Amino acid sequence: MSRDVILVDPLPRTVDLIMDPSVKARLHRLGEVVISEDRPMPAEQVDALLPDAVLIFGQTDMPKERLDRARKLKAIINVESNFLPNIDYQTCVERGIWVITPASAFASPVAEASLAMALDLARGITKADRDFRVGAEQYGLAGNEETFRFAGAPVGIIGFGDLGQQLRELIRPFRNHVRVFDPWLPEEIVQRADCVPSSLDELLSESQVVFVFASVTSENEGFIGAREFSLMRKGAAFLLMSRAAVVDFPAMLEAAGSGHIRVATDVFPEEPVAPDDPVRTTPGLLLSAHRTGGTRDAFYALGSMAVADAELIMRGLPPQLCRRADPATVRRLRSKPVTVS
Amino acid sequence: MSRDVILVDPLPRTVDLIMDPSVKARLHRLGEVVISEDRPMPAEQVDALLPDAVLIFGQTDMPKERLDRARKLKAIINVESNFLPNIDYQTCVERGIWVITPASAFASPVAEASLAMALDLARGITKADRDFRVGAEQYGLAGNEETFRFAGAPVGIIGFGDLGQQLRELIRPFRNHVRVFDPWLPEEIVQRADCVPSSLDELLSESQVVFVFASVTSENEGFIGAREFSLMRKGAAFLLMSRAAVVDFPAMLEAAGSGHIRVATDVFPEEPVAPDDPVRTTPGLLLSAHRTGGTRDAFYALGSMAVADAELIMRGLPPQLCRRADPATVRRLRSKPVTVS
Amino acid sequence: MSRDVILVDPLPRTVDLIMDPSVKARLHRLGEVVISEDRPMPAEQVDALLPDAVLIFGQTDMPKERLDRARKLKAIINVESNFLPNIDYQTCVERGIWVITPASAFASPVAEASLAMALDLARGITKADRDFRVGAEQYGLAGNEETFRFAGAPVGIIGFGDLGQQLRELIRPFRNHVRVFDPWLPEEIVQRADCVPSSLDELLSESQVVFVFASVTSENEGFIGAREFSLMRKGAAFLLMSRAAVVDFPAMLEAAGSGHIRVATDVFPEEPVAPDDPVRTTPGLLLSAHRTGGTRDAFYALGSMAVADAELIMRGLPPQLCRRADPATVRRLRSKPVTVS
Amino acid sequence: MSRDVILVDPLPRTVDLIMDPSVKARLHRLGEVVISEDRPMPAEQVDALLPDAVLIFGQTDMPKERLDRARKLKAIINVESNFLPNIDYQTCVERGIWVITPASAFASPVAEASLAMALDLARGITKADRDFRVGAEQYGLAGNEETFRFAGAPVGIIGFGDLGQQLRELIRPFRNHVRVFDPWLPEEIVQRADCVPSSLDELLSESQVVFVFASVTSENEGFIGAREFSLMRKGAAFLLMSRAAVVDFPAMLEAAGSGHIRVATDVFPEEPVAPDDPVRTTPGLLLSAHRTGGTRDAFYALGSMAVADAELIMRGLPPQLCRRADPATVRRLRSKPVTVS
Repeated sequence: MSRDVILVDPLPRTVDLIMDPSVKARLHRLGEVVISEDRPMPAEQVDALLPDAVLIFGQTDMPKERLDRARKLKAIINVESNFLPNIDYQTCVERGIWVITPASAFASPVAEASLAMALDLARGITKADRDFRVGAEQYGLAGNEETFRFAGAPVGIIGFGDLGQQLRELIRPFRNHVRVFDPWLPEEIVQRADCVPSSLDELLSESQVVFVFASVTSENEGFIGAREFSLMRKGAAFLLMSRAAVVDFPAMLEAAGSGHIRVATDVFPEEPVAPDDPVRTTPGLLLSAHRTGGTRDAFYALGSMAVADAELIMRGLPPQLCRRADPATVRRLRSKPVTVS
Repeated sequence: MSRDVILVDPLPRTVDLIMDPSVKARLHRLGEVVISEDRPMPAEQVDALLPDAVLIFGQTDMPKERLDRARKLKAIINVESNFLPNIDYQTCVERGIWVITPASAFASPVAEASLAMALDLARGITKADRDFRVGAEQYGLAGNEETFRFAGAPVGIIGFGDLGQQLRELIRPFRNHVRVFDPWLPEEIVQRADCVPSSLDELLSESQVVFVFASVTSENEGFIGAREFSLMRKGAAFLLMSRAAVVDFPAMLEAAGSGHIRVATDVFPEEPVAPDDPVRTTPGLLLSAHRTGGTRDAFYALGSMAVADAELIMRGLPPQLCRRADPATVRRLRSKPVTVS
Repeated sequence: MSRDVILVDPLPRTVDLIMDPSVKARLHRLGEVVISEDRPMPAEQVDALLPDAVLIFGQTDMPKERLDRARKLKAIINVESNFLPNIDYQTCVERGIWVITPASAFASPVAEASLAMALDLARGITKADRDFRVGAEQYGLAGNEETFRFAGAPVGIIGFGDLGQQLRELIRPFRNHVRVFDPWLPEEIVQRADCVPSSLDELLSESQVVFVFASVTSENEGFIGAREFSLMRKGAAFLLMSRAAVVDFPAMLEAAGSGHIRVATDVFPEEPVAPDDPVRTTPGLLLSAHRTGGTRDAFYALGSMAVADAELIMRGLPPQLCRRADPATVRRLRSKPVTVS
Repeated sequence: MSRDVILVDPLPRTVDLIMDPSVKARLHRLGEVVISEDRPMPAEQVDALLPDAVLIFGQTDMPKERLDRARKLKAIINVESNFLPNIDYQTCVERGIWVITPASAFASPVAEASLAMALDLARGITKADRDFRVGAEQYGLAGNEETFRFAGAPVGIIGFGDLGQQLRELIRPFRNHVRVFDPWLPEEIVQRADCVPSSLDELLSESQVVFVFASVTSENEGFIGAREFSLMRKGAAFLLMSRAAVVDFPAMLEAAGSGHIRVATDVFPEEPVAPDDPVRTTPGLLLSAHRTGGTRDAFYALGSMAVADAELIMRGLPPQLCRRADPATVRRLRSKPVTVS
């Protein structure tokens, strides 16, 4: 007899991490849910379920031979939020199987924290607190000698996907002139958001605050290095919020430590960072342990976006919330699997 | 022969502190400028200038007998930004002498820093940096155990003058439900800003983030005390940005130190704070040394607003940028003169 | 025995016109209400009530001799919305009697209708409907030969009080470059609203849509005439929304009728307009019979703003919603009393 | 020798209609441009070019046999803006050939005109002008007896694609409560735009202004009929801006003519409308001859979006501006080819 199986293989996520009870209930209304979350779903279990599977939530390997046996499969929904090379994307495209991921779930908390950290660097919030605690605080104008107003400061955004666009909306009340560098986008997308398309060099040299939200691709590893940092204005702020590999990390630490710029970073070449890593003692740095995206609400948004699109797909409609795997793009991405939630 | 004298008596400000060269040039175009800024203008000099004075920029004492001799005087422009009881306001009103102050010059930088500090308390920015520096950082969701999203959190604003209203505009993209307590304002002003008029108790008990921007009056000293802090939600954030005297300061420290709420403050009962003041070691506190308003741009805005309104007044038009001294209101204010810029 | 009388003398308004039942109830809570609305309150009744009057709602003549007898009077609240020369303003100022009017009550509906009429001129809404009814409609691009997009068109605003500022907020989503001409305001007010201060000539020659919201003063009657219309771009739109007397009306009709510009007007030199007035047949004109402000909600807003400020005044606080009569300004205004609601 | 041919077969559009000179120059930089715009490109010419074609701009029939011969083809860009059943979409998907259309080029002018027409119905703009021309105008409040304020009125949007979303952004300053009915979208999309997902019946019965932007599908022809109009509030406004076939047109005319609701429509079951069609004389109707989208700027946007995405595709990147043909969705659409530009 015909069953509609929903194969849930979400590690390193778990169902309770990404779905509140109401979303879980909606998942169960879509079919017979089979979950493996203490370990990746064993191959024999996957193989047994494939003929009845209509949806896969997770990062299960799906080469052509498995897809060929999954004749009812409508969608593979990656809930880790990075596409991996363990799926035969071309076969999915040909078969009309959606491969999607609710990647933008993390955009909102990261954009919020990016603004928090930019305001911190601009107005000296963490530094003022640290000074106060050791009796070295300065009052009034004297306490603002190294600060600048975020309002009205020229801003640069490198990478204008969900995250960059959400940050842009958050800062609207501050009325900044915003330059954007994103070679994957047409100028229209940038201009519609009231930003100015810019070259990387112009952005770096003209901005007082630079946000980096770029993904890592095969083409852009380390594209912001010593030369680029030297283009920046003295005292400008640089916020690295996406992937450590897009910058030359030692060059960034040098630019911060020398006092040339101030830097905030949420990401590091190796995580967790070694106990004796020099990053811990570099001055001019604001540190965050890859934690700006991983908020309670973001994980729940991951699950609710996944389920909402699954509902559409089961009705024969296209997904609306998740990002689709464009085969051409997937081949360029260089993400590492996440090992910590 | 007739002279139009502009008496500039700006201490604790100085002309160069509050006017950039272009604004200073505009000031000089309004009349003959006489400045005393190494000391308050001596009485004999004031008295000599009064008959020709058309404008006073500063905090010069202006009792009735002086006003009676200043027959050409059109305006007294306080550039310290707090009205003091050293002017005969009634006589000014009767004579049509404007008494004004560009108080809102500080609203923009304070609102910006208020948001910075609120985001800091919500997302744990300063704390995460401190933890990282001692090797105690937590990654991902574990690093967010004590954080909350500012976006969407219920917000309360106590005091809805220039500062409260500017903060409200800054947080629009975060889509908070915003309650306002301000007994001096009609509900319409609150509602037009898409906020909900609220009682103090409801605001405190329902908000996740509470901003205090209230002025001190003869009626509200210490109106937020132990009872009020106990109404707040556990883990909520309280930001004191206007005057220390509106809260019971020890009760606030107790509420922070006990872990009931998290607190940020820019003001203190005595400034500078004593080296051994317990505030320096209280946990759960984010400290700022009365420095959120005193930015370079704010002092210049003070001067340019003062001069722009002086220009209008010299043309026979009402001022548009400065706050007017309403005699009824002035009597209620309890500001201390500022001693530090 | 002491009574607190509220003298209500609102013609040409009536209480029911301007107050819904809840606002009327609030009015009655402020004191003993005495109303004359079938005729102006007779002099003997006014004189009898003056010693007990705490508030006047209306346009009662209040020369010095009456004010001298009104020892308890705190405020005169004009509910017609134009200050008239029938009050001794100087005595009111000296006595601390507020003279205020809820003039901005009409700003919201007029701004809305101004945008409606501007969009009509730009996109040819009324004209397209007229053409369709006589079988002369044009489809697609052919139907847009004489239209232009309001979005992005350069806009000019003449007069930047409540009305101009509300219109400016309404058109934000259209992303126009907005020039403002208002010689009574400092540049800061214009710039804060993201507009550009401009001379009249530059505004007229560079704008595709010109809104006129200027009041009539002793200095600006007919200040927009044939020379000014000739500065405008061919096909530009001109909207006269405040007072007919600020333009040279025949010159405006000539500019419309000749096809040089398109014009919308809500006001006329004489109202009602004569049956055979040429305005009725001039082409290129969109006509509205002084009706954009007089909406049901606007009249109620008039009353609720008046009562809300009266409540503050009775508590010893300054009014927040109404406009204050600055004696200097009042002398310049040239309003005619309204005869029709 | 290898050529990269760009096959341009744009009828009913022409190249000059949709591309300004700078966009045309960008098109020519992408390859060797071959245009047929006085007639559809003849089959023999198409067949001759196919082996070298990298891009097709237009509505050329592309069955499997043609696709099989177009081995270099990267994209088919429909410039009429409706997908037609003359392409083998499945083969395109399998081959990685993008099939896209810049449909949203028309969203901006239609949204603007939709607001114009809604404001017209609410505030009686066209009607007031018509009355004035025949000497029947009413002044002040009397002239507003049948009007309502658009600001604050409850709004309903049926169909929340590009057009509905752009209209929603345009009306933000009016602070309406906005309900949305769109069964193809998840609630998140609606909520992110600060709207409330709603059933059709609730939307119709609770809204003062209803905008219809829904596409026609095999499932929704005539889904708004007599029953639905009867649910609407007396005096409410109904704006039909997308396709005539989604409503029961005679029922709509009846609802307008009887005075139950007021209606504006830009579309008609047959266009051009017959000279004696009763629509021309029905009262309560605001008429527009399918002209709200066809503005000069919209046609140019069509071309520039098409070329911008073609540029991305030629670089191996996914398109960002055009809508993609999802095979599942294409099968549901019931568009008629446009015959008039």
